[in-house]
Amino acid sequence: MAYITINSKHFKHNLNVIRKHLDSIESSAQDSNKYSKSLGDKKRIEIGAVLKDNAYGHGLEIMSDLCVQNNIESAFVKNYDEALKISHKFKHITFFYGKLPRDFDRKIKNIYVSVPSLESLHEMIRDFGKSLENVGVELKVNIGMNRNGIESKQIKTCIDAILGAKMRLIGVFSHNGYGDDKGGEYELECARFSEIKEIVRDLAAAKGFMLPRFHSLNSSAALRAKFSDDDLIRAGIAMYGYLSSDVDIESACNLRPILKLYGEKIATRTLQKGERVGYGGRTIIESKCDISTYDVGYGDGFYRVDGQRRVLLPCGLEMLPKTSMDCFSCFSSEREILVMDDASYIASIFDTIPYEVLTRLSPFIKRVVV
Amino acid sequence: MAYITINSKHFKHNLNVIRKHLDSIESSAQDSNKYSKSLGDKKRIEIGAVLKDNAYGHGLEIMSDLCVQNNIESAFVKNYDEALKISHKFKHITFFYGKLPRDFDRKIKNIYVSVPSLESLHEMIRDFGKSLENVGVELKVNIGMNRNGIESKQIKTCIDAILGAKMRLIGVFSHNGYGDDKGGEYELECARFSEIKEIVRDLAAAKGFMLPRFHSLNSSAALRAKFSDDDLIRAGIAMYGYLSSDVDIESACNLRPILKLYGEKIATRTLQKGERVGYGGRTIIESKCDISTYDVGYGDGFYRVDGQRRVLLPCGLEMLPKTSMDCFSCFSSEREILVMDDASYIASIFDTIPYEVLTRLSPFIKRVVV
Repeated sequence: MAYITINSKHFKHNLNVIRKHLDSIESSAQDSNKYSKSLGDKKRIEIGAVLKDNAYGHGLEIMSDLCVQNNIESAFVKNYDEALKISHKFKHITFFYGKLPRDFDRKIKNIYVSVPSLESLHEMIRDFGKSLENVGVELKVNIGMNRNGIESKQIKTCIDAILGAKMRLIGVFSHNGYGDDKGGEYELECARFSEIKEIVRDLAAAKGFMLPRFHSLNSSAALRAKFSDDDLIRAGIAMYGYLSSDVDIESACNLRPILKLYGEKIATRTLQKGERVGYGGRTIIESKCDISTYDVGYGDGFYRVDGQRRVLLPCGLEMLPKTSMDCFSCFSSEREILVMDDASYIASIFDTIPYEVLTRLSPFIKRVVV
Repeated sequence: MAYITINSKHFKHNLNVIRKHLDSIESSAQDSNKYSKSLGDKKRIEIGAVLKDNAYGHGLEIMSDLCVQNNIESAFVKNYDEALKISHKFKHITFFYGKLPRDFDRKIKNIYVSVPSLESLHEMIRDFGKSLENVGVELKVNIGMNRNGIESKQIKTCIDAILGAKMRLIGVFSHNGYGDDKGGEYELECARFSEIKEIVRDLAAAKGFMLPRFHSLNSSAALRAKFSDDDLIRAGIAMYGYLSSDVDIESACNLRPILKLYGEKIATRTLQKGERVGYGGRTIIESKCDISTYDVGYGDGFYRVDGQRRVLLPCGLEMLPKTSMDCFSCFSSEREILVMDDASYIASIFDTIPYEVLTRLSPFIKRVVV
């Protein structure tokens, strides 16, 4: 059976790359709060792990365990379902999308709902009423990506509503969507988030609520930062060993992909010159050879290869077209074969980014830590 | 939250399309056996359901239930894990790939292992020995696709080994890989499978074992067939409402896709001329408008849209680039939006086939029957 390995050493290494960069960033300890840790005079920026979408296809459970082993306390997931699966493993879990379910478990205090708009906040308060008491919430603010998030001018209204519903304001966060791009927009977004923080700090001082944690930087935005007084960065793709950036980010050069995909042999056959293989007989044998079929196909989430684009395996052999839903053939007779060790390569062939290559890997493929 | 609907009426309709065609095929009742049903003088060819790869992305559990409601008794899945999930629902379940696990449940008699090569059969007998007694097996034969399957000349050796191990020979099957293609290869493969059947029938008569069921036709191969004396056809893509064939197959014109994908609104915003949306600000607003973000992204298995290819929603609105892992934006303010009702359209944009579009849909999206 096909399987995926997750390299725990590479994972630790990637976290170290991020840690090292964060430690090099100047920051002040002035506004450390209960959700951030101080490190002497400097505030230590926490690394939160983005584990959404089955941990970018790596496997939610297995990656959660690795994160815990590496002292990560905050996780970010897609929805409540994912949060529930790992609520016992982390101190803080925030889900980005979807509503709080009607029957949410009130005993679980460390799952936080994120609020993407004033409208959704009002709706939640209307729907849940008093049962929201003590529910943790992270307020998403828009700083220029314009997908979602509340505006600066709505912050006061939102925080009043949150406090009024006796929810706990755990965090105020945003998403700098320009971390990978040249031009000045990245810095502009950083500046906008700084203004947001000032607004929240002023409100906290005036109203006497505890300062929430602040976070706005994803992998690339964090690794290119020269300064940050955020409490936490959200490490996603860099943690998994990749960065797709148009900007040269020196600290990211050493990231190492942690995932490898292997296929197991189904059968070997000796074919003669002129024989054909696969759907439509797309591959024609040029001279007598051994050919094997391995149990990875597009049904496992690996891109379909139909001959329009040429895909080589890490060993240099070609993945012969057309590949099937459950298998592919190549000129090998090995019992198992490495299908992918670098999602960037596959991404470049299919005009996309490693994120898409990774997230589409089937959750049903067995994952093992090595 | 994003969700998928499965249209039970369309599903029934598609099965009727297949049934009608099969009933129109002349066949003889001469070799009906315990796995096939006779219909007066004509042998009724059974429809088996291909439910592998999470039922081509439609959802294994939900599709199994629909199949059972439509009197389907035989299911075909990817591996033992999938078989185990539905073993209580069907009379016969065959898994195509992967080995029988060491700790397979001996009490379950209706899960059949398929044998793709003589080598793998010998290996299984060596590994399991006497515990294979009474295990059902379907023998895969190669008729020209050359991915896997035993050769005609190996049939006797294989059947001897199966009988020697006291396994039950449930079926002898193949996969006609040319159902979608012009040219004479399709008929050649049909002829080769007929020869195989003769060999097996002769062996059964000589050795006195019960005749296994025969099947070699997938959706397109079955729907273009003018004659078949197989016991069963394996309906896959046609059952889900599609056929990607280079051949005109009249009976397939009326197939209806059964799956629709919907997104739920995360937030609506009013944007001014010149403002930008999404990663890298790829979409620039031309005049003041309302824009909403919906919770479907490439992390849900929907193709990533980065602006190189233009994707329209069924309502005609554009899916604005760049889409994210968990969401996309469009010029709408509806609470929910239909993202896909025809995988062929998405397949044509991304140079692939509906199978790939469908199988990559995340199993974590909620599915409901309508």
